[in-house]
Amino acid sequence: MRIGWIGTGVMGASMAGHLLDAGYELSVHNRTRARADALVERGARWADTPAAAAEGADLVGLMVGVPADVAAVALGPDGVIGGLAAGSTLVDFTTSDPALAVELSEAGTSRGVGVLDAPVSGGDVGARAGTLSIMVGGEAAVFERARPVLEVVGGTIVHQGAAGSGQHTKLVNQILIAGTMVGLCEALLYARGAGLDPTTVLESVGGGAAASWSLANLAPRIVADDLGPGFLVDHFVKDLGLALDHAARMGLQLPSLALANDLYVSLAAEGGGRNGTQALIIELARRSGFSWP
Amino acid sequence: MRIGWIGTGVMGASMAGHLLDAGYELSVHNRTRARADALVERGARWADTPAAAAEGADLVGLMVGVPADVAAVALGPDGVIGGLAAGSTLVDFTTSDPALAVELSEAGTSRGVGVLDAPVSGGDVGARAGTLSIMVGGEAAVFERARPVLEVVGGTIVHQGAAGSGQHTKLVNQILIAGTMVGLCEALLYARGAGLDPTTVLESVGGGAAASWSLANLAPRIVADDLGPGFLVDHFVKDLGLALDHAARMGLQLPSLALANDLYVSLAAEGGGRNGTQALIIELARRSGFSWP
Repeated sequence: MRIGWIGTGVMGASMAGHLLDAGYELSVHNRTRARADALVERGARWADTPAAAAEGADLVGLMVGVPADVAAVALGPDGVIGGLAAGSTLVDFTTSDPALAVELSEAGTSRGVGVLDAPVSGGDVGARAGTLSIMVGGEAAVFERARPVLEVVGGTIVHQGAAGSGQHTKLVNQILIAGTMVGLCEALLYARGAGLDPTTVLESVGGGAAASWSLANLAPRIVADDLGPGFLVDHFVKDLGLALDHAARMGLQLPSLALANDLYVSLAAEGGGRNGTQALIIELARRSGFSWP
Repeated sequence: MRIGWIGTGVMGASMAGHLLDAGYELSVHNRTRARADALVERGARWADTPAAAAEGADLVGLMVGVPADVAAVALGPDGVIGGLAAGSTLVDFTTSDPALAVELSEAGTSRGVGVLDAPVSGGDVGARAGTLSIMVGGEAAVFERARPVLEVVGGTIVHQGAAGSGQHTKLVNQILIAGTMVGLCEALLYARGAGLDPTTVLESVGGGAAASWSLANLAPRIVADDLGPGFLVDHFVKDLGLALDHAARMGLQLPSLALANDLYVSLAAEGGGRNGTQALIIELARRSGFSWP
């Protein structure tokens, strides 16, 4: 089985590497060619365009940056859809716009190409370990034929429904994280304001009803003044904007999501976009006239 | 060692029962006498007033409702502090006002009585199992002499600092839960708006960076339309109000806490106060003109 792969950033390179390890014949394309060198050295074939990576492939995986990148790589001149044969499959692993996922699916279907939206969570650690959670939207038959490839790069692989459902599920994931992160940063500010030792506080609150992945993994980094990524603020801003946009289309007022979006957009505007999401504490401290640390 | 116990509601009765099981000689008082009957049948002595329960006791534990109850039971006529001898200890397990904890500590110290604020988390399940997390404020020497008793009713027992620190730590816990709960309910509304199956969504998002105790324990109850307690909205409203009040005194603007307080106060005002905290989804749905379920 031949696979094309577009996008060899931190996540994409790990995922494509697992496909090579599993014995798939791989063509790779990336905007910056040098970032694909390591894969080419391990046996992947370089392709000059997305369409060239798709040519002769049974399945193409995308892992690029933002929805505009997905649209360009998939639908643009020299795009993947133009290079794929009928009966093949396009899997977009990028966290992107559910509406674009529907558009890609329709464009594929009209040419006999099956399309899945399949955003992931688990970060670079999950990508390296091959344990990503993959949230899949698209036709069930297409999902079944792509499943062996998905199982090479992911651990928890769930078909969520029709085209766009994978993206919507990923946005649900981000809404959950947003609420938890704002509460977490406010709680740490309160602890400091009350004169508590934050590490001692975490001993008391870490194991019960306040427990979360963010509390276990990001609170200690905040306390240690480590605000690096992890998950980039700039990427989170993209996701929260998509979620807000679609919530509005559904007639939903989601005030916590709106608050998180406002805070993260401000943080990015103040130059914090390349930090990890836990840097939110800087923005919350600033709004009260304090600095952190 | 003789122990007095005031407050035999769901939590207090379980905790006092563990003290009987551990062999302590127990005097109990409760506003509604009938709720202490089961403990009296197991060997506790009934006391007509808080002061009478405190008479001859080495340690008195309080587990009552709201700060006004704590003040009345501890400081009022026939209150505990009046009944305790020098060298004894008062432990307030109620989630209450950090400022009142300081006041109690001062009132105790002036009579030679050691006072600890020791609110708990873990709910009725943790109280029954003796695994509560106990967050303790007060003098270290008083904490050490009370520790054997705390170990009978709790699992994670952490001294957080001076008087009031236990209460502040519990409020940190509640701020964390508040942010997570609002995000959780918004995420489930978004999932419904997007036409997703919420149970299938939880399979994808439950194990990664969006994971939380609330997601694991309360989201399935929301999906099953089970909005009963669990933790009462009325009690959470009390806690969020205390946290907001103290945040304001610290000069902290905590917008997620303020939002959660606003939503939960509205929910209680609409008659939802005796539901569990997961009933927040009703209030969020209402704000968008929807009903839940």
